[in-house]
Amino acid sequence: MIVEANTVRFDSISLDSGATLAPVDVAYETYGRLNASKSNAILVLHAFSGDAHAAGISHEKGKTGWWDNMIGPGKAFDTNKYFMICSNVLGGCRGTTGPGSVNPATGRAYAMSFPVITIGDMVRVQRMLIDWFGIPRLLSVTGGSMGGMQALEWAVSYPDRVVSAIPIACTTRHSAQQIAFNEVGRQAIMADPDWNNGDYYGGKPPARGLAVARMVGHITFMSDDSMREKFGRRLRGKETFGFDFDVDFEVESYLRYRGSEFVTRFDANSYLYITKAMDYFDLTNGHGSLAAAFERTEARFLAISFSSDWLYPSYQSQEIVRALRARNCDVAYVELESNYGHDAFLVDVAEQTDLIRGFLASTVEKAP
Amino acid sequence: MIVEANTVRFDSISLDSGATLAPVDVAYETYGRLNASKSNAILVLHAFSGDAHAAGISHEKGKTGWWDNMIGPGKAFDTNKYFMICSNVLGGCRGTTGPGSVNPATGRAYAMSFPVITIGDMVRVQRMLIDWFGIPRLLSVTGGSMGGMQALEWAVSYPDRVVSAIPIACTTRHSAQQIAFNEVGRQAIMADPDWNNGDYYGGKPPARGLAVARMVGHITFMSDDSMREKFGRRLRGKETFGFDFDVDFEVESYLRYRGSEFVTRFDANSYLYITKAMDYFDLTNGHGSLAAAFERTEARFLAISFSSDWLYPSYQSQEIVRALRARNCDVAYVELESNYGHDAFLVDVAEQTDLIRGFLASTVEKAP
Repeated sequence: MIVEANTVRFDSISLDSGATLAPVDVAYETYGRLNASKSNAILVLHAFSGDAHAAGISHEKGKTGWWDNMIGPGKAFDTNKYFMICSNVLGGCRGTTGPGSVNPATGRAYAMSFPVITIGDMVRVQRMLIDWFGIPRLLSVTGGSMGGMQALEWAVSYPDRVVSAIPIACTTRHSAQQIAFNEVGRQAIMADPDWNNGDYYGGKPPARGLAVARMVGHITFMSDDSMREKFGRRLRGKETFGFDFDVDFEVESYLRYRGSEFVTRFDANSYLYITKAMDYFDLTNGHGSLAAAFERTEARFLAISFSSDWLYPSYQSQEIVRALRARNCDVAYVELESNYGHDAFLVDVAEQTDLIRGFLASTVEKAP
Repeated sequence: MIVEANTVRFDSISLDSGATLAPVDVAYETYGRLNASKSNAILVLHAFSGDAHAAGISHEKGKTGWWDNMIGPGKAFDTNKYFMICSNVLGGCRGTTGPGSVNPATGRAYAMSFPVITIGDMVRVQRMLIDWFGIPRLLSVTGGSMGGMQALEWAVSYPDRVVSAIPIACTTRHSAQQIAFNEVGRQAIMADPDWNNGDYYGGKPPARGLAVARMVGHITFMSDDSMREKFGRRLRGKETFGFDFDVDFEVESYLRYRGSEFVTRFDANSYLYITKAMDYFDLTNGHGSLAAAFERTEARFLAISFSSDWLYPSYQSQEIVRALRARNCDVAYVELESNYGHDAFLVDVAEQTDLIRGFLASTVEKAP
């Protein structure tokens, strides 16, 4: 399945901060076919460092999409049945307008003059895209991690536009620990002199700071157990300790590689803006309580969490479930056993597939 | 209790790497009085960023020792009964020879020409100090975190020199996750251009890199719960989000403060060397198995871990206990309920005090 990225431009958007952004480009991909009644569309929402390329092989780079094991013919999100849409988030660096985009007012990259955005703003842009498609209601909105946060925001902000939601490994608001990990990443970037207050476009990006930020991220994506299984205390290409500060352990080599590889595909300022949006996200904002936030929600829900995920622990998904049950909403919840930590939603897909396939089938059956 | 730091100089030491270091200064403090038979001495071993100032008020700076709530008249380590000794570790930056010390061969700081050291080397220096005191056997060796690792090394390397050991919140070897967190700290420091390959003495230290490293550390020292209780999502000095990259949340302010404060009291190169020693530590090295490592051990043990400590989880203490039981050693183990995470051994001392007081009393009774 060779897929192509598309871009649509919208005139402007009003943001939660009060600022206006104009214009806004949105990069997106689609898989499968929209049916005549436009009732089979599912919006897939990517996690922090993801992009619009969720499935298939990209026309440009030949790269497989980040959720290709979940989206395609016969897969959990069966493209023989459903029309899948995935767009890069506002503030991103993979086609949608973000801090690295050119500000038409100055002819230069926005950099840190880009307005601070929220998960609500991201979803507002997605709604413009769904309107542009002429889709009255999405059969489902789904994603893991920050993608799940967007799915929740959709269900709360546009209750009449979503039939169902599948938030995976996510939360209604970041805990102090989650904010803390994001803040460390931001500080690592801003501590790099090459960051230069965000003005590095066309020059040398803050590669070292961004790499350190990503290394921290990778530790939080895995579980203690999965790191033990994958690396243990194995040495990298040597029989004994080097007694120097080169790589000794496999896990050090892995982190350094992941850090430096990330720099080639992600913009440091997008790191700052997107983590900030995640930290600001609080579904109770403007509602007072979670139950109140869900008051107008009509969607049915499938919430999924993973037993070894300590970055978005199961108790956070259970908070969603309790609040929905308190509003008498239709919600199913499963904590899947997995060793993969937070990464599980991307890699441990067998049970996830069964759950989602069944949930979507019953959603179609029950759809008004 | 006003205390003074002392320093003793030893001619040289042979290190596990094969290198020799000469001379070696050791900074230490003592509390209480050594009895005539020299049988009441307890060696306290500090954690990663600790120093010799474990108790009392320092003569120089008026600062309270890091374990003052545990050491003193009537406390867990009762200075009316016991003679307490605490020394700064080899590689440290608080009086004992480390990378910031002057290399007599060059007249300049060792910096990265300082040899890579191990927990075994640290303990070898401590044994020289105990010899210098003329103490034949220590009534106990104790410490939390890296201090506990040193206590284990003492019991294994010098089985005839320790009557008992109290390893707290520690491990016999770092897991991949523990190595990973240390590696992130090292990379953050080495990514700072001010690190300058370690040659910054007399100039500008790598303050930003070291601060980022310390921020990561502070997250791992606390539990998800304790961060929630201490910070939650409370904003810092504002009613609403700032929509900029200044501090929004209390937890951000705390981390930034802790990071910058650490820079004033700790040397970045010591950070590199001491974390490397921790990562290299593996009690099975040269023994094949943990049970074999404990083969000659005669000490009785009290192992303590804390329920919410995810940096040194209880299962690591339980590994120690199982190996000791397999050798039919005298070992007591308690997992204390605490919300404080790894910090618990420093702050949650009520139950810890009862346990240690009782253990030491019975150790004295049973002592040969």
